[in-house]
Amino acid sequence: MSIQNRQRLRDIDNTGFGPNSSVEGGRLINSDGSANLRKRGIPIWERTSVYHSLLRMKGSHFILGIFLFYTFINLIFAVIYFLTGVSHLTGTDGAHTTSEQFMEAFFFSSQTLTTVGYGHVAPSGMMTNSIASIESLVGILTFALVTGLIYGRFSRPRAYLLFSPSVLIAPFKEGRALMLRMATYKNNHLTDVEANVTLAMHEEENGKTVTKFYPLPLQFAKINSLALSWTIVHAIDEDSPLYHCRKEDVTDTKMEVIVNIKAFDDHFSNIVQQRTSYTHNQFVYGAKFLPMFEKAPDGDYTILELDKINLHELVKLPDAKTHHHKGNVEVNP
Amino acid sequence: MSIQNRQRLRDIDNTGFGPNSSVEGGRLINSDGSANLRKRGIPIWERTSVYHSLLRMKGSHFILGIFLFYTFINLIFAVIYFLTGVSHLTGTDGAHTTSEQFMEAFFFSSQTLTTVGYGHVAPSGMMTNSIASIESLVGILTFALVTGLIYGRFSRPRAYLLFSPSVLIAPFKEGRALMLRMATYKNNHLTDVEANVTLAMHEEENGKTVTKFYPLPLQFAKINSLALSWTIVHAIDEDSPLYHCRKEDVTDTKMEVIVNIKAFDDHFSNIVQQRTSYTHNQFVYGAKFLPMFEKAPDGDYTILELDKINLHELVKLPDAKTHHHKGNVEVNP
Amino acid sequence: MSIQNRQRLRDIDNTGFGPNSSVEGGRLINSDGSANLRKRGIPIWERTSVYHSLLRMKGSHFILGIFLFYTFINLIFAVIYFLTGVSHLTGTDGAHTTSEQFMEAFFFSSQTLTTVGYGHVAPSGMMTNSIASIESLVGILTFALVTGLIYGRFSRPRAYLLFSPSVLIAPFKEGRALMLRMATYKNNHLTDVEANVTLAMHEEENGKTVTKFYPLPLQFAKINSLALSWTIVHAIDEDSPLYHCRKEDVTDTKMEVIVNIKAFDDHFSNIVQQRTSYTHNQFVYGAKFLPMFEKAPDGDYTILELDKINLHELVKLPDAKTHHHKGNVEVNP
Amino acid sequence: MSIQNRQRLRDIDNTGFGPNSSVEGGRLINSDGSANLRKRGIPIWERTSVYHSLLRMKGSHFILGIFLFYTFINLIFAVIYFLTGVSHLTGTDGAHTTSEQFMEAFFFSSQTLTTVGYGHVAPSGMMTNSIASIESLVGILTFALVTGLIYGRFSRPRAYLLFSPSVLIAPFKEGRALMLRMATYKNNHLTDVEANVTLAMHEEENGKTVTKFYPLPLQFAKINSLALSWTIVHAIDEDSPLYHCRKEDVTDTKMEVIVNIKAFDDHFSNIVQQRTSYTHNQFVYGAKFLPMFEKAPDGDYTILELDKINLHELVKLPDAKTHHHKGNVEVNP
Repeated sequence: MSIQNRQRLRDIDNTGFGPNSSVEGGRLINSDGSANLRKRGIPIWERTSVYHSLLRMKGSHFILGIFLFYTFINLIFAVIYFLTGVSHLTGTDGAHTTSEQFMEAFFFSSQTLTTVGYGHVAPSGMMTNSIASIESLVGILTFALVTGLIYGRFSRPRAYLLFSPSVLIAPFKEGRALMLRMATYKNNHLTDVEANVTLAMHEEENGKTVTKFYPLPLQFAKINSLALSWTIVHAIDEDSPLYHCRKEDVTDTKMEVIVNIKAFDDHFSNIVQQRTSYTHNQFVYGAKFLPMFEKAPDGDYTILELDKINLHELVKLPDAKTHHHKGNVEVNP
Repeated sequence: MSIQNRQRLRDIDNTGFGPNSSVEGGRLINSDGSANLRKRGIPIWERTSVYHSLLRMKGSHFILGIFLFYTFINLIFAVIYFLTGVSHLTGTDGAHTTSEQFMEAFFFSSQTLTTVGYGHVAPSGMMTNSIASIESLVGILTFALVTGLIYGRFSRPRAYLLFSPSVLIAPFKEGRALMLRMATYKNNHLTDVEANVTLAMHEEENGKTVTKFYPLPLQFAKINSLALSWTIVHAIDEDSPLYHCRKEDVTDTKMEVIVNIKAFDDHFSNIVQQRTSYTHNQFVYGAKFLPMFEKAPDGDYTILELDKINLHELVKLPDAKTHHHKGNVEVNP
Repeated sequence: MSIQNRQRLRDIDNTGFGPNSSVEGGRLINSDGSANLRKRGIPIWERTSVYHSLLRMKGSHFILGIFLFYTFINLIFAVIYFLTGVSHLTGTDGAHTTSEQFMEAFFFSSQTLTTVGYGHVAPSGMMTNSIASIESLVGILTFALVTGLIYGRFSRPRAYLLFSPSVLIAPFKEGRALMLRMATYKNNHLTDVEANVTLAMHEEENGKTVTKFYPLPLQFAKINSLALSWTIVHAIDEDSPLYHCRKEDVTDTKMEVIVNIKAFDDHFSNIVQQRTSYTHNQFVYGAKFLPMFEKAPDGDYTILELDKINLHELVKLPDAKTHHHKGNVEVNP
Repeated sequence: MSIQNRQRLRDIDNTGFGPNSSVEGGRLINSDGSANLRKRGIPIWERTSVYHSLLRMKGSHFILGIFLFYTFINLIFAVIYFLTGVSHLTGTDGAHTTSEQFMEAFFFSSQTLTTVGYGHVAPSGMMTNSIASIESLVGILTFALVTGLIYGRFSRPRAYLLFSPSVLIAPFKEGRALMLRMATYKNNHLTDVEANVTLAMHEEENGKTVTKFYPLPLQFAKINSLALSWTIVHAIDEDSPLYHCRKEDVTDTKMEVIVNIKAFDDHFSNIVQQRTSYTHNQFVYGAKFLPMFEKAPDGDYTILELDKINLHELVKLPDAKTHHHKGNVEVNP
């Protein structure tokens, strides 16, 4: 890339990333859309949003966590009932050994916490009654949180977008374009879909490596409705930071393409958002996407083939010089 | 339609539909607003959003589903209690036959799952107590999901829009316009209502049929408040893709008008959205809507007559040539 | 109002009201913001949104409704248990008369529906157990709806705006302005507050009365934050539909000022909206608002006096002719 | 500050604050973002939003409040059961003294309210059964509100922004700028972050002090994504109300900088907002922020050090005269 061109382009520093973040080549955004970042300097409980963590957590971990939490609270109340005296739990006369008595206390606790309250074991006396009364309150309140979270996880607005694993440098009109493809992979319907694409390059400047960010203008930055697939196209014209970019530059500058999609989902009745990021080894230099949909045999509807999201064939790119201004004699392979 | 005109018009490809989707004439959008589309290539459980499906499902199916689900979970736990030994359920001494014992296990399960826990049947022993303890937890958590869904279905933001079943080509000022009418049919009040109308035509191009999309500019694309009915009007002037359109063209090009309405609803305090689509056989060429509201007998309020949403009378359309430029001698019937 | 002026002004028909709605002078928008409108032509259950109705309903009616609903469902199940045979409810041996038995069935039903399930009365036998099992499911599901609604009503985003009961024609700079005042009356904080004001006039046109709508441009249509009060100001300059308006015109044309406020509320984290409408008898011609806040005695904070929202004093209006163009000799009182 | 300059600048009155609010120098916005304001003139229950108050309340107060509320309702029903006659509560025969009987009534009430319903104490008779039936309904409905609130507090969309405690007047390009720094301190990710900064000054005008508001244009008023920290920069150029501002003016005019941040949070899927305000004693005149992030030892990710949010070093400011127009000979220290 010629030094003149680099001067001409305006990089932006309104990305929320600093100019020298992760200088040694670690990616900025992970492919799941989270920032490749850790925070420090304040205690972990202050810098952790319990709510965010519980929404993000893997489903199996979440279920296991609930089970352990339930056992834990039951254990605590079981110990309290046990110390208060199992004799205040009517119906536990058959329990003679310590372990039998503790078991009765534990299961009474669980029946109280879930408000199932069979009653074959029941509290008697001021103290035990009070504890049971508090436990049933605690049960209602904590299960409110837990069930709220379960439903919150289940109904959390998500875009369900499938991105092509590759980003292509493809022929486009008389020149080239950077292209990537996306589709919703579930039975959701997005409208007012907006895309925002930023290119990050790690460049040498005054002897040290700095990260520069360039917004990539798109052919269409917004579509009304996303029914089939959408190929996001950044035309590589003279105003593009990629105009003089050769194949080697992709790897040399450790390019990263950050994609953010925002849309409205009908059934969530909410805005949904999804981010992803492509690192230099996901670039395919000289390729074009092949169609990923076909008509149904009976012609009545269209079939979208999600396994073809990345389907592309290698093609020869037009010379960069051929497009826009004839006087340019620089040759890009 | 003259070939010159067709060249002049810019079709758009930012609709999220590809240019050759459903070539054989199947509609693009169903009248309920869903895309006429199927997805393939990844397993069904990955391409199905359980949440979206449960929100969309018919009410009666949903209720039936809950009932079957409830019976199913009860059966599973009943089998477990039965295998563990009904003797560990106190109060079931009267049940002697296998079927009686299974019945006791089944209803104990249901009393535990719903946390009603009468207690005339109660668990005893480590194993049965543990199972009951887990079942009451399972009950709380699954009913959280189910009840969340019921309320989610009940309170889901919807626009409650009634569209006229016909789209009219009507006289408008000195020329013509494409018109359709809508009103909210429930006691909801929409504000900041935006309409977006797209015309799809299946045209012959280089010997094969391609689908082209044209945005239709509206007289008013946004209204402040939707109290009575709203007639959406696309004036067919020289810039309209319908300017040279004759009656036959509607059917020949298998026209489809896709309408998307977005608004803010006061009581949901949320954005609501509704889509519909008109196919060529819903066009009425040469007609105008008649009023669908009248004043109350005592004059104090207005009455909106929803059964008149499609009320129109056939009228003669002005010749296309008469409007805008006199030189045009083409005659449109 | 001179006929020339009237021609010059462009009325709008994108209000969602038709041109001849409620011709006989009934108001268009009620002061609580709902449209003065009834719908007809489809059955009441189709044109009623249960959800909207339940959210709008008066609190006391809502509570009463829940209580009646609860009693009704209990009665239904009580009848079923009674018909099935009270003998299948253990623990009801003491009930000998029909009314005692029905009472036992009724209260057993209520204990099952709420899942309190004391168990001193408990079901026995396949049939009664099945009914109880279904009732507890019904209980969980209906209470989910009811409690969802209660919380939905309680947490429903609302703007809590207090509008001045009067709209003033007040002196403003060298001319006049239409002014109204609003403030939040609760401890909520609104940001990005937008106002939209429309004037409706019932005018004589070709011998019949039609309703015309004029948007009123505001001095500030949006403020960043609503902490104290906000006086909404429409300057009555040459472009205003009120420029030539005399005091009599307010009543003669049955003026109605429709105000719509949209804002973002911090704690609801949602957009809130409130509408109101002023009819001609709420106009005060020649008056200005007096301040409604003062500093605290110790000077550390500001006091907003909500009972002064309508506080104004009568003043002489400047002659309409004095402002903007000297040539105008028309005299407005 | 020269009087000419002051004339040239346009202060705004669309802030929602009046021109003479809190004249004696109390701040306008508290540092937690709430307005420094009290409302009066209507009864407290009408000017208090219970919902807002319960969401804002400190966690410990909220929990204590629930506990007291629970005890209070239990007491009321206990009194009712007691007055109705404890003899109608079966299973309380062992309670002979008044206090024992009241205790039985109290705990029966708590078991009914939480629907735990052990059943060792159970209602008998029409009256007591009816009361218990109502109490269990009351329990379900009030706990619905309480648990809704708990989850509402837990999941309430918040921006989790940490602001630098100081606002700096720092060197910027060839001149000066007002700078403050912010970062999210939790594991949340904000996108489409917008900042809005307003300067309030208490100025002498015609012998009395008035508060004037100036919007401060920002270098970037919106960033796509907030991953690391964001330094908000208002360049102090000729159009800035701070252009002629000397160090003394900050204190003399009791400057206050009001900052409002609005953004979209991925996991809440909602807009979040946070406000803060800087008073004159939080200004540092002549300082610049030092970086608050560094690369990880292994170079794979970036570390954001939240304890360095306010880290700055004192620097000499360039003379105001040096920038923009040479003719200005006024010297600002």
